[in-house]
Formats: sequence, C-alpha cells, structure tokens
Amino acid sequence: MKKTDVLIIGGSASGIVTAITGKSNYPDKSFTVVRIEDDVMVPCGIPYIFGTLMDANKNKIPDEALTNMGIDLVIDEAISIDREARTCSTRKGESFEYEKLVLATGSKPANVSWLKNADLNNVFTVTKDKPTLEKILETIPDTTNVVVIGGGFIGVEFADELNKRDKKVTVVELLPRLLAQAFDEEMSAKARSLLEERGVNVICGKSVKELQGQNKVEGVVLSDGENLPADMVILAVGYQPNVGLAKEAGLEINEVGSIRVDEYMRTCDPNILAVGDCAEKRQFTTRNLHPVMLASTATSEARIAGMNLFKLCAVKTFIGTISIFSTGIGDTGFAVAGLTKSKAEEEGFEVVEGSFEGPDKHPGSLPGTHPQSVRLVVSKDSGVILGGEIMGGGSTGELINFLGLAIQNRMTVNSLQVSQIGTHPLLTSPPTAYPVIKAAEIAMRNCNSG
Amino acid sequence: MKKTDVLIIGGSASGIVTAITGKSNYPDKSFTVVRIEDDVMVPCGIPYIFGTLMDANKNKIPDEALTNMGIDLVIDEAISIDREARTCSTRKGESFEYEKLVLATGSKPANVSWLKNADLNNVFTVTKDKPTLEKILETIPDTTNVVVIGGGFIGVEFADELNKRDKKVTVVELLPRLLAQAFDEEMSAKARSLLEERGVNVICGKSVKELQGQNKVEGVVLSDGENLPADMVILAVGYQPNVGLAKEAGLEINEVGSIRVDEYMRTCDPNILAVGDCAEKRQFTTRNLHPVMLASTATSEARIAGMNLFKLCAVKTFIGTISIFSTGIGDTGFAVAGLTKSKAEEEGFEVVEGSFEGPDKHPGSLPGTHPQSVRLVVSKDSGVILGGEIMGGGSTGELINFLGLAIQNRMTVNSLQVSQIGTHPLLTSPPTAYPVIKAAEIAMRNCNSG
Repeated sequence: MKKTDVLIIGGSASGIVTAITGKSNYPDKSFTVVRIEDDVMVPCGIPYIFGTLMDANKNKIPDEALTNMGIDLVIDEAISIDREARTCSTRKGESFEYEKLVLATGSKPANVSWLKNADLNNVFTVTKDKPTLEKILETIPDTTNVVVIGGGFIGVEFADELNKRDKKVTVVELLPRLLAQAFDEEMSAKARSLLEERGVNVICGKSVKELQGQNKVEGVVLSDGENLPADMVILAVGYQPNVGLAKEAGLEINEVGSIRVDEYMRTCDPNILAVGDCAEKRQFTTRNLHPVMLASTATSEARIAGMNLFKLCAVKTFIGTISIFSTGIGDTGFAVAGLTKSKAEEEGFEVVEGSFEGPDKHPGSLPGTHPQSVRLVVSKDSGVILGGEIMGGGSTGELINFLGLAIQNRMTVNSLQVSQIGTHPLLTSPPTAYPVIKAAEIAMRNCNSG
Repeated sequence: MKKTDVLIIGGSASGIVTAITGKSNYPDKSFTVVRIEDDVMVPCGIPYIFGTLMDANKNKIPDEALTNMGIDLVIDEAISIDREARTCSTRKGESFEYEKLVLATGSKPANVSWLKNADLNNVFTVTKDKPTLEKILETIPDTTNVVVIGGGFIGVEFADELNKRDKKVTVVELLPRLLAQAFDEEMSAKARSLLEERGVNVICGKSVKELQGQNKVEGVVLSDGENLPADMVILAVGYQPNVGLAKEAGLEINEVGSIRVDEYMRTCDPNILAVGDCAEKRQFTTRNLHPVMLASTATSEARIAGMNLFKLCAVKTFIGTISIFSTGIGDTGFAVAGLTKSKAEEEGFEVVEGSFEGPDKHPGSLPGTHPQSVRLVVSKDSGVILGGEIMGGGSTGELINFLGLAIQNRMTVNSLQVSQIGTHPLLTSPPTAYPVIKAAEIAMRNCNSG
C-alpha cells in the first residue's frame, strides 16, 4: 500500500494540469499521477504528427513537467476504487491510499461495431496511444487512397495533413456539412471549399454502409452504393466519456454518460473530483448539459480542481463551457466560441448578427496579409454577445480568445464597441476597421432595428 | 457658404472613424471631412514604407472609405472657427456652416529648435505628410549612415526598417533604455538586444548636443562629445497635440496642452467635439491626465464621438486609456496594455507580478514556433490586473487585445485564471501552459504570499 495525498488517474492534458496546479497550490501535499501510457501525446497535436511533424516523439508532453515539481508518476492502470477505504488498486497489483482522488480518465473513440469490417487492417480509430499513432505513421507510405470517415475537427485536420503527403484523401461526413457541431453554415462552407481547393475530396450528407477488403481494407461503401477505393481508413466519428472506473465505484453518471460534478469539479463523493472529457459539462449561456470534449474546457476544469482540492479558494467566475475552439486548414485559421446562430436560435434566443471582413495586417499590401472575417451572434433584446466565429490567418487563435473573454464577461455589443483594441501594421487589422469592433457596430444597429 | 450637419476637421484615423461611425449611426445627416493632405497615410504603417513596402502609395487609406458612404471630402485647411455662428473658414476661402463640429486635428512633431542645425538637408522629422515621406524614401539610397534620434516606438520601427535596407543605423535615446514610456526594463532590454542582434547600433542615456554638416547633415554630436557620422538623421523625439485652431476658437485647453473633453468627447462648447491626439486623455486606472498618442485610443474615442454626435446612445463602459500598444522588431512582437510595474508603483499601488514563457505553438517542435512571454502587473490587495506586457510571434497583437479586454473589464487574476482559453497546435501555446493563464496563477500566489 502506497500513500499519496492526491491521486490523479489519467495523464493527458487535464490530469497534468490538475497535478501541476494542485502541487503549486498545495506544495506540502504529495501528488501521484497514474496513467496507462508510456508516453503522453500533446492531444491536439496528434493530427500534425502525420504531415508536419512526421514523428510522434516530436509530439510528446515531457514527463518533466510533472517530475520536476516532485509529482510521482506511475505507469499503470487504475482498475478499482474503494471509496470507503479511500484506496485505488491497479492492474500491476499496486494499491494507493489517497486523501483526494481526481478522475481524469478522458474519452475513448465511439464504438464502431455498427460498421461492418471495421476490424480490417489499415483501419484506424484515432486514440491518444502513441504505438497506435506510430502504426498509422508507418502505414501511410504504403497507401494511395485514404478515406477519413467523419468531418468533425479531427477528421478535417487528418485530411489536411494526409493531403500534405500527396495522398488522395476523401472525407465522408454524415451531416450535410463539415464541422457542423462547431460552426454555422457559412464557415462550414468556407472550410469545405478551402479543403477542396487544397485537393481533398469532400462528401457530405452520406453515411458509410460498410468497409470492404480481404485482410486489408480496400474500399468504403457509402449508403448510396458508391464505392470509394481505400487502402487506409481513419475513423473519426466521435468520442465517449471514459467512465467505467467511476461507474463501478458507484459515482453518479449523468444523462449523457459523463461523471456528475458540481462547479468545483466535485463528484457526489466529497473526496473524488473529475475533470476533462469524462466530467459533466454545461453550456455557458443556458446551463444545459453540453458534452463537448475540448482541451480548452478540460484544462480550465483542471485548474479549478487543482486550486480547490483541499479548500475552495479560486472562485469560479465563469460557469459553463463556451466551447472555444480553433483549428487550421493550410494557413487559414478557423475558430469559434460560445453559441453559433443556429444553436442560439434552438435555445430560444432572438438573434441578430454582425459580420465584417478585412485584412489581418494593415495596409493589406504588407507581405503575408490574410483576410480576416468575424461574425458575432448577439441576443437582440439584451445586446449580450452569445458567440462568434472567426476566419483568418495566424492570429486567429488569439483573436478567438479575445472574443471568448468578451463572451465570458457577458459583454454587450455596446461595451465591445467602445472598448480599446491595440493595432499594429505587422500584427493586426487596422484601427479604422478592426473586424471584431466593426461586427459589433453592425450587430448593435441590427439590435436596434425593427 | 456651404452647409453640412457634421464638419470634421482632420482626415487621419480618428477623423475617418468619426465620420464613418457617425454616418452609419446618423445616415440622414450630411458629413464633411476637411483635411490638408491630398493623400492620407495609414499612420502606424509609416515606418514600413521604408523597408517593407518601399512605396508610400502602398500605405494609403483609400478615400473611398469615406466617399462610398456619401461623406463629402474637402482638401483644404480649416483656419478659423466662429462658434457663435457655427461656421468654419478655410485657407482656400471657403466657409462651412455646421451643426456639430469635430476636431480631429491630431499632433505634430515636437519642436526641435533646441537642436542646432536641425534644418540641414537630410534631417527629417516624421510627419504623416506623404510628400515628406517620399522625400525620405528618395534620400535613402544615397545614404550609408543613418542616425535615428529618439528610441520610442517610431524611432525603433524606423531603425528596424532602415536596417533592412542595409544601412548602418544608430538609435540615440536620451533615457537609459529604449521604449521607456511603454515598457518596463526587462522588455526594453529585450527590444534593445534584439535590435542589436539585427545589426542596429543602440546608444541610450545620452543626449544629442548638435548636428553637424555644411548643406547636408554629416554628423551627430552627442553630449559626451562623441561624433556619429550621419548622412541622414531621423528625428523621432515626440509629438505635441495640434490645438492651434481650438485655442484660437477659445476652447478650453488642459494642463498638458490637449483640448479638454468629457467622457463623450465633448468640449466646453456643446456643439464641438474633439478626438484623437489633440484631445484630452486620462489613464484608465487612476483617471489622471495621460497624454498618450495611439491609434487604439484615438479610434476608440472616434467611435464614441461618432455614435454620440446628436444624442448619447452608446454608453462608454470603459473610461480612460489603457495605452494598448504593439510593435514588431523582425518577427518578434512586443506589446503592452495598462500600467507597467513602474508606473503602477509611481501611482501608489502595491504591485505583484506574474511571468511565464512558453512556445507560441505546440508542440514547440512545429515549424515557425516563436517563444512567447507574458508579464502581468497586479494590485496585490485586490488582485485586479493593472497591466501586462507580452513578447511573442505573429499572434502578439491579438494576445495583447485579449489582455486589454481583461484589464478593461477590471478582471482579477482569479477570474483570468479560471477563464477558458482556446488553443490549437498551429495557432497558440498549449492548453497546459498558456502563458497568460500561468502568469495569472503565479501572480495570484504572489498576491497571497507575505
């Protein structure tokens, strides 16, 4: 029996951040992270192993982030929790006594047993497991036709990366458009046309009937009978919370299969917390259940858990996820935060929009200038900014964080419009036509009209 | 006598934004912009004419921004205002009757009569006047040694651009460090060492005694007698508000020489507003007079003026300037918002800091990754974020806007720390170590210690 003050199960983003934040805030407590993987992958970096990095070792989160702080790291699998005794047993026969336990068990690829022949060779789901990813990397050179099933962000990022390897890449998405969970139609259409320009074949609105092949996959048969040649298939059809351990320990699981937690990430057991993909999430504006799986949300939860392990000290001022998210296709960034127009309307808001496009440097004649377009989704009656989408160049990722902060502060278009923004020729759009501000101006007029 | 509902004097950033915002909000009113210049330069783009753009025409703000909206544009100089009659006369003998008048007369280079031989050929002050800028551009090829007097951002940007032309560039700054008005010591030191690495000679803590030469400038003599060879000199020693017209019209001028205005940019005359470099500014945190000249502040004022010309409709939720500012040296961005540590301490705050550095993409092995460092200045007792400095890559300009929004919302390190930020390998630092959040974490611990 080993003793540790805090036992964290799971070594990806939320586990790491819980451990680091916790240890920083409670340096006298002992911390242990138990994880299955020998090496931890930067989760969002996974698609970039295949076209840009070309080596999974370049996508590792160094263990020193933990060990340098005096956090113990154990490579093993937690298999059961005794909540009464406050102990956790592992696959290798170890047992840990804890004061606080944090479940950061993440998610796993959605079950694909509905798909005939999903067990053929060269058919891969996308996990965070380095050996599996290395197998994909090794397989790529021997392939010509790759079919990516699923047009969410993992699917789109894989497609763009594999396309850089000069593969014939096809993305198949069941819904009528790409990135449909994240974006409204216009941005989805732009992402699609950009992918197509870059040489990726995109098929939306069709389901996959089955895979075909002998040992190795040879084709993907669509619902309408079309047969796509394929010598590699990437299954990117979603993830589900990994809650087996929590369930078995009798922790409460919510209606959508996540571990029930309060605002401070505490489960129904006062000594057990849960963070990241396995933990319950609610939407920022409505507080409805909203099971997104994003590192932005997961690490925010992990910071809350780490700070509040032994006492509530960091007050959670922003409650619920804004699903803030960015990605890149080529040198174009796509990003979103808060509610899309369609989601806001579904929830019952009367919505107005404001859109504006300009260059992301100024004058636009500067080398490397990229168009930047911003769309704001605003509650017509209150003027509160509910969400926004951005398409632009390399600064898109930080610009969505600007917008994310506006949303989290429940700013109105009035306040956004009268706020000060810094601009510089080499770094931003011009002060005379900064797209976020212009979009707020337009949205404000739309609030006041009609 | 011509009649216009709104007469705007000055055609640079704040004049343009007032006109456009005003016309958008009051489409039934007639708007006229009177300006001296034939062509308007993107103000912050001016330094980039000389090394990157190589043509002043590439740095023009197109007049269509105004004329396409039905705003009249008059190239002329306003020379007097009759407040009683509500008329304004011009150099060319025209007269305009107005309902509302907006002074956007900007700033002019500080007087350099103290400097002996400042009237030699090849000695230039930096104005927004295109013919003068073209004269500088024409002169550059015939020069070898360029001395830039003044190490503020105009001086630093000119130095970096002229250095791209393979000139021997020396910057001379009176204060002990570069960019001393904008940054604390550490960032100033980084800017200096980066400029030096790039081949610029930097001399700080010395004044200039005189210029030497026959017709053309030949040398710059420093206070300690050192004589720098120079066949071109750029004087970037500051600007002063251009308030002659306002003064003559009897408008109130404040202690630091700017036109006194209220929060809605109204002067003591209810029909006259003033915006931009000529108008009074106050610091966001203390409300003390703070005469910064930045496009960020100027255009924010212009939006307020434009919206509130005929009635108060847009409530100014953020009062006072946060002096938000960014610049670039090579591919490194430098940015600041709010109070620096030294200014905050001068004002009487007990200050703590939090600093963190990481890569601006993740994993850091991705091509084009640039280090990103963030320093937060925080009130120890309240935890309110007073200011921050950032050094990074191409996303620095938008990241400072993120921080600027946090400051304007008077967020605490607690709120910043528990907020959600979006991250993506190609676009941002990692979710596990996002420098702004990590710096907030560290600052929060510093608030609580001792």
